[in-house]
Amino acid sequence: MKKILLLGAGRSATVLIDYLLAHTTSHNWQLSIADVAVHHLEEKLRPFPQARALVFNVEDEAQRSSEIDAADVVISMLPALFHPLVAQSCLALGKHLVTASYVPPQIKTLDAEAKAKGLTFLMECGLDPGIDHMSALKIIHQLQRQGCAVTSFKSFTGGLMAPASDNNPWHYKFTWNPRNVVLAGQGTAKFIEQGTIKYIPYPQLFKRTETFTVEGFGEFDGYANRDSLSYREPYGLQNIPTMLRGTLRRPGYCQAWQVLVQLGLTDDSYSLEDATELTYRQLVESYLPAADPGKPLRQRVAEYVGLPPQAKELELVEWTGLFDELPIGLPNATPAQALEKLLVQKWKLSPSDKDMIVMLHQFEFEREGTRHKLSSSLVVLGEDEVQTAMAKTVGLPVGIATKLLLEGKLQRSGVLVPLQEDLYLPILEELEQYGIRFEEREVQM
Amino acid sequence: MKKILLLGAGRSATVLIDYLLAHTTSHNWQLSIADVAVHHLEEKLRPFPQARALVFNVEDEAQRSSEIDAADVVISMLPALFHPLVAQSCLALGKHLVTASYVPPQIKTLDAEAKAKGLTFLMECGLDPGIDHMSALKIIHQLQRQGCAVTSFKSFTGGLMAPASDNNPWHYKFTWNPRNVVLAGQGTAKFIEQGTIKYIPYPQLFKRTETFTVEGFGEFDGYANRDSLSYREPYGLQNIPTMLRGTLRRPGYCQAWQVLVQLGLTDDSYSLEDATELTYRQLVESYLPAADPGKPLRQRVAEYVGLPPQAKELELVEWTGLFDELPIGLPNATPAQALEKLLVQKWKLSPSDKDMIVMLHQFEFEREGTRHKLSSSLVVLGEDEVQTAMAKTVGLPVGIATKLLLEGKLQRSGVLVPLQEDLYLPILEELEQYGIRFEEREVQM
Repeated sequence: MKKILLLGAGRSATVLIDYLLAHTTSHNWQLSIADVAVHHLEEKLRPFPQARALVFNVEDEAQRSSEIDAADVVISMLPALFHPLVAQSCLALGKHLVTASYVPPQIKTLDAEAKAKGLTFLMECGLDPGIDHMSALKIIHQLQRQGCAVTSFKSFTGGLMAPASDNNPWHYKFTWNPRNVVLAGQGTAKFIEQGTIKYIPYPQLFKRTETFTVEGFGEFDGYANRDSLSYREPYGLQNIPTMLRGTLRRPGYCQAWQVLVQLGLTDDSYSLEDATELTYRQLVESYLPAADPGKPLRQRVAEYVGLPPQAKELELVEWTGLFDELPIGLPNATPAQALEKLLVQKWKLSPSDKDMIVMLHQFEFEREGTRHKLSSSLVVLGEDEVQTAMAKTVGLPVGIATKLLLEGKLQRSGVLVPLQEDLYLPILEELEQYGIRFEEREVQM
Repeated sequence: MKKILLLGAGRSATVLIDYLLAHTTSHNWQLSIADVAVHHLEEKLRPFPQARALVFNVEDEAQRSSEIDAADVVISMLPALFHPLVAQSCLALGKHLVTASYVPPQIKTLDAEAKAKGLTFLMECGLDPGIDHMSALKIIHQLQRQGCAVTSFKSFTGGLMAPASDNNPWHYKFTWNPRNVVLAGQGTAKFIEQGTIKYIPYPQLFKRTETFTVEGFGEFDGYANRDSLSYREPYGLQNIPTMLRGTLRRPGYCQAWQVLVQLGLTDDSYSLEDATELTYRQLVESYLPAADPGKPLRQRVAEYVGLPPQAKELELVEWTGLFDELPIGLPNATPAQALEKLLVQKWKLSPSDKDMIVMLHQFEFEREGTRHKLSSSLVVLGEDEVQTAMAKTVGLPVGIATKLLLEGKLQRSGVLVPLQEDLYLPILEELEQYGIRFEEREVQM
């Protein structure tokens, strides 16, 4: 009997929990699910005598050690900041670890020790990072085996709303950490284009989008992620002339978000004076030059950002409630925190809402002297507010990887990311059974 | 015999040293001038047997203690980061201190101890901070005594070039720390306008200027400093509806600087890839969308920032050499460091160049039911590259304050800023003898 300890039972773990439960009997697993609150799991676990839930505080060292010590493999779906703590315990107690988060430097340094102990610390095994690596490398490795030179690789992911639930003018609701959405893109985006390193400073980022079409799902705008350059080496594309990773939004979103950026509303670096009493309308006012009496606020904002007052962008901004005399009611809020508070209400999922994950890879390459374009796209729709596309695409690869590990089919040790064929192929294959399947289309250029 | 220890004998201390030397005999002072290098002082000190120069390392605790212990008053013209160290020694050894820099928090906390020991730590006694406080408060206190309500106070300072030496299209050369000039305005400017707190994010700062005329010297553009709000309380203007502090440049500068900001060239938050080989032209290219072959770089920059290619702003940008195939040659440079390196060459003072300090206060107030406008302006011209306007306006108030202190005319103790009449009046009076004199003009509105 193999023992799994799952740390974290939040929204993004629902599908993972279902996957693990569905395999407990057939695979003779014992599953412990640990989180600060677990009462929501009681009913779900009742039919599974081999599963239990426990109230867990990762910072309680005694509890952390005793629970990890009782397991064969630990899955951490906790916030990423706790992963170094968990990894240290796994290393000390000789346990495998699987997560869906980026490898932080403190875990990277554990590689040699984990290898020496024959432990697998598999990280970046969710959606993004995770499925993005696996699906891209499957194509890159195929092309390289065919002797093709990859000249361009652009890859975008978006957590969006399914068409049936896409019912606000931003075509967006929060299916992910709202704070990260509000702060997205801060810093400077770096990528390479036609052999030239390119930088896009944050104030220009949401203006410099590229539009893509996904058959059956319409158009998407992509904006550049912060660092596309560091992926060249792990992807084996050291000398690729064009490489860009980015985030997808529906058309209209980036253009309207740009207005919020230009005003200064996404700034998280200082506290507003008196953000308790201040209204959102007053907040907008505080970014504009002195009032020209009688001119409507929307028109003044439009003039300030260089748009006509009837522009669609202003409609989206107005829809958020930023022009309303509604108090922010958040002492010492930064502009970004004030904006987040407003958007959390406006971009809230309704109980029946279905989300959608879109991932798009675009390759250009040369095969036997001719140039080709290959696009590979994934669309996953949520089934309801619990079986979301986000929870499926983050949780299933983690669950599959854990199963492979316990079945002895994942024999690499050390700190790993699913970049090798023997890691990604079986995961991608099983994901197809759950409808997570990429559509490829190749054309000669 | 009173003993003065001057720490720091750099460019901004030249006039201060002359002032102190001129008074050594008549006031029976002994003057020690301490710096890492002092050979440039030898000749100057030869006629003054009561003055000596010494090689000094402020971080050498033994030397710091023994030199400070031998003095009655310490003047620090060292970089501001060393002031807490100096102040601690002064406190321990019971010595007065005078500086031209802002009060840092570590010195603010010494107030009670300094008071208890009867020590004067007079800070912010140069130009800006210094003469700005003194000259503004003289007017504010006069108006308040007359029962006037001050409704608006805007105050700007600029370190610029005298008309005779104003011979480049930016109308600017470095007379101050180049790095601070390149990074100026980063963060968010805060001020109050017509009772509303206003924020200007950095990407908009150099667009939102105000133009002023100083009789005999033409026009100046002012951009807002980072924090105008914190001055309300020390100036006794807690409820003023409009208050803004800012920096002056000649017309054209801010508009062209805005192009550099928009491109991203003033960013100091990341290192460029390969800034050794990269040329300035390639650097500009890396901020632009992919090249449209054959279109001139200047035109592409113009289109990117939304200006016509023949715009004056582009002429200024091109003049800097940013469009030249000149290698940056600075490993791991940030964009801001690369830009600074270029500008240091272009904005270098020639031996005969004369600088100019301009300070401008604009008040609006109500006196007996009528509204008035009062403007007070100071223009100081440098005499040569040593007796600069900057060195005069920074050094003279420090020298005068030191003299007052040694004469027993400055009897306040604790950590002080020259905000009180008994501090600023004698300093402003003596400054007039050196041609540092404000011109006032009042009109009814």
